[in-house]
Amino acid sequence: MFSLHPQLEQDSILLGHMDLCQVRLSLDANYPWCLLIPERGAVTEIHHLSEEDRHQLMDESCRLAEVMVGLFDPKKINVAALGNMVPQLHLHHVARFEGDAAWPAPIWGRAAALAYAPEALAKRRDKLISALVGEGFTPAAN
Amino acid sequence: MFSLHPQLEQDSILLGHMDLCQVRLSLDANYPWCLLIPERGAVTEIHHLSEEDRHQLMDESCRLAEVMVGLFDPKKINVAALGNMVPQLHLHHVARFEGDAAWPAPIWGRAAALAYAPEALAKRRDKLISALVGEGFTPAAN
Repeated sequence: MFSLHPQLEQDSILLGHMDLCQVRLSLDANYPWCLLIPERGAVTEIHHLSEEDRHQLMDESCRLAEVMVGLFDPKKINVAALGNMVPQLHLHHVARFEGDAAWPAPIWGRAAALAYAPEALAKRRDKLISALVGEGFTPAAN
Repeated sequence: MFSLHPQLEQDSILLGHMDLCQVRLSLDANYPWCLLIPERGAVTEIHHLSEEDRHQLMDESCRLAEVMVGLFDPKKINVAALGNMVPQLHLHHVARFEGDAAWPAPIWGRAAALAYAPEALAKRRDKLISALVGEGFTPAAN
């Protein structure tokens, strides 16, 4: 049975569901930063997923990355499954820009998390949901 | 046409080829650390690959991760496509242990790279190649 790790719950908000994953937006305003979390019980590594789920995760990851490129026009998308501190499998997608708070380093352990202004968070959430809506994505209730 | 980025060439050695990717071993002895590099010209992002290549990359990534788990019995596998400094698409696979040089942080920008003793490098190379050999992997000439 799937239940979201409390740290992921605390650090991000739900945008909606793809067929396999929850799509969430990180609450760190330093970067446009989304998470995919396969709703598959106690899975901690990508290779623990079935072959079908692995391919589905790849499809959902690429769809999310393409949406983020379309919205934010970043220099680079960083995609990573780390999980040293939060073991539940979660796949980071971070839109990176020259001159952002950690560039060119990876973001983890660099700048302190920056809170969104409430309007900025709502705006980013709505933009992402609007761009994701369609086959294979069900937005979260507002 | 594919040609390997000089920085990747300098920082790693070739273990062999899967159907899509070069498999390489990082020369930083701090961690068992392998790279998959799709031999697809100027690709910089996973989502630039065709759907078939995306799924193949997922398959090769999981096979490599499973081999690394079998050989090294790590606490966690970190998988990441970053590429902020070296744009050519390359997928890191790092076996992580509690108490390693960066634990629990991601490895990038932490400990200075540590050179392998020549025998230790040869031994790790040979162990990885032996575990990878089989359908879908052709070892590099020694």
